[in-house]
Amino acid sequence: MTLETTVAEIRPADEPAMGAARELQARLTKPAGSLGDLEPLSARLAGLAGACPPPLPEPAAVAVFAGDHGVHAQGVSPWPQEVTAQMVANFLAGGAVVNAFARQAGATVKVIDVGVTVPSAPNENLLDRNVRRGTRDMTVEPALTRDEARAAVETGIRVAEQLAGAGAVCLITGDMGIANTTPAAALIAAFTGCGAEAATGRGTGIDDAMHAHKVAVVRDALDRHAPDPADPLGVLAAVGGLEHAALAGFVLGAAALRIPVIIDGVIAASGALAAAAFAPDAVAAMVAGHLSVEPGAAVALAHLGLEPLLDLGMRLGEGSGAVLALPVVAAAVRVLHEVATFDSAGVSEK
Amino acid sequence: MTLETTVAEIRPADEPAMGAARELQARLTKPAGSLGDLEPLSARLAGLAGACPPPLPEPAAVAVFAGDHGVHAQGVSPWPQEVTAQMVANFLAGGAVVNAFARQAGATVKVIDVGVTVPSAPNENLLDRNVRRGTRDMTVEPALTRDEARAAVETGIRVAEQLAGAGAVCLITGDMGIANTTPAAALIAAFTGCGAEAATGRGTGIDDAMHAHKVAVVRDALDRHAPDPADPLGVLAAVGGLEHAALAGFVLGAAALRIPVIIDGVIAASGALAAAAFAPDAVAAMVAGHLSVEPGAAVALAHLGLEPLLDLGMRLGEGSGAVLALPVVAAAVRVLHEVATFDSAGVSEK
Repeated sequence: MTLETTVAEIRPADEPAMGAARELQARLTKPAGSLGDLEPLSARLAGLAGACPPPLPEPAAVAVFAGDHGVHAQGVSPWPQEVTAQMVANFLAGGAVVNAFARQAGATVKVIDVGVTVPSAPNENLLDRNVRRGTRDMTVEPALTRDEARAAVETGIRVAEQLAGAGAVCLITGDMGIANTTPAAALIAAFTGCGAEAATGRGTGIDDAMHAHKVAVVRDALDRHAPDPADPLGVLAAVGGLEHAALAGFVLGAAALRIPVIIDGVIAASGALAAAAFAPDAVAAMVAGHLSVEPGAAVALAHLGLEPLLDLGMRLGEGSGAVLALPVVAAAVRVLHEVATFDSAGVSEK
Repeated sequence: MTLETTVAEIRPADEPAMGAARELQARLTKPAGSLGDLEPLSARLAGLAGACPPPLPEPAAVAVFAGDHGVHAQGVSPWPQEVTAQMVANFLAGGAVVNAFARQAGATVKVIDVGVTVPSAPNENLLDRNVRRGTRDMTVEPALTRDEARAAVETGIRVAEQLAGAGAVCLITGDMGIANTTPAAALIAAFTGCGAEAATGRGTGIDDAMHAHKVAVVRDALDRHAPDPADPLGVLAAVGGLEHAALAGFVLGAAALRIPVIIDGVIAASGALAAAAFAPDAVAAMVAGHLSVEPGAAVALAHLGLEPLLDLGMRLGEGSGAVLALPVVAAAVRVLHEVATFDSAGVSEK
């Protein structure tokens, strides 16, 4: 589907299904509210599916969108750009953290080259959807044309459709791209209105001097392009990345399909902000998997009104935190499927 | 084993194995420290096992220790005491939250009647280890004799040995007992020195008046018995519960076997405090699964120096929060087994 037809498909959560989930929670053999955050999560997922109980989020599929960044030339990361392609190879060989976590959770991992500088060898788990071999340097010119940004967004939409077509009923956001926390920070500042400093973190681990420089780079890019948050395609083109744009589309695709999408860290959260700018009701499909250490992640999730499930001090990306949250999402739904009611179990109420 | 022989088996973490885990973490294909809390957890588990990598925590077994409480007569819970036995039947029928979570995580659930007022019908998943049909009212007299407290502790030790003998390499604490947050609060106050108010919460959900009464009940029991934290058996006898004492033994058993034990909520945390009072090195075997809403849980975990993995606003007990943390524990270990190194994957370093 195109961006416009996908956005047109996205509808608010189904209130009767949410109400049914809340009512069922109150009859299950546990004190009311004792499952904490899992209870409203189960109601949100019922609202998304339009059914109580909603389906279990299994099987789930991780999509790792990979891209390179012209802004890398500004010295915002201590890692060489070649690491993006090397990590793509590591994902395809099953050797990265997201692979280990996905094997444990029973999720598949697909890698989508949406913007890597170096082509990867064909592989059954690689989708070659390269839009452009890396973005332009946003401190000099827009990172992407509007057409390139649209192509990346629509790639993400099609990947969501393809994974769902292959049976996935829960999508998980992953990313890889050396320097990609820099465009993520710029996107978060643009969409939320927070300053460059509030959105910019230390990424893979940089020192104070490089961090100060990175903040200045983000501020310069925002000053140069003055992106308009009411024009999400324009924001993605000016200061985004190809994987960020694809993630925005991936989230929109999930929302149009009415299946949950677990948001990983700061890259996914910046894409989710773009998705919500295209279609505010897309938030109903989003589950915040974890709270990344990157400060922009918390800013973005707060703007979206999402509470992260896990807070483990992680800052790896790849989808690692989101995959780790999958069992919590499944548990929230499973309660509605499997737990006895006071009536059925013959348990006295207070 | 007896309490004394078990305590004598418990040794500190193995420093060389912890060092090897930290050194391996630094060579894996991810930025150093980017897995947050999972990295020190993996090192702790290596130290416990005395091996790097430590074994994956699979299969895991949940032990739900059930008991009743004489202090229930003081009106500290809105639930009738009969619910303890009714919930035991629900666990055995597989209808409770802990059953649903354990099925998802691939863990077994055994229920141990260590102190329920009403006997349960025989069941393959029930261990009848009843020490006494409910404790005495601690506001009137000691809840247990020292011999009863010892019998409950040694029951917990033997359950750990039995589950490990059947193949479990990770133990998970569970509990059931209407009114059991009241003795848990008294135990936490006794072992940590915090006041009754700091340790006493709303359990399954009580109103302000019942909460104020519950605080007074805990304070009265502490004033009456003045339990000495250097005498953990005396503390358990004075203000404990049979499931709390059994959980203390279960934790000691895991520590002696050098296998991890995931601590659930406030009941398990109070038992863990008793275990640490018997054998300070037992803390090396403990993993705090989650942060219960019950205020005493945070007090106890801080006293033990443990950081909870999950914080989902849960307050159900049963072992539910600990089972939910099992995949996080497994993921921390799995990284050391499965993730490629920079060298092996041909990924450049910064």
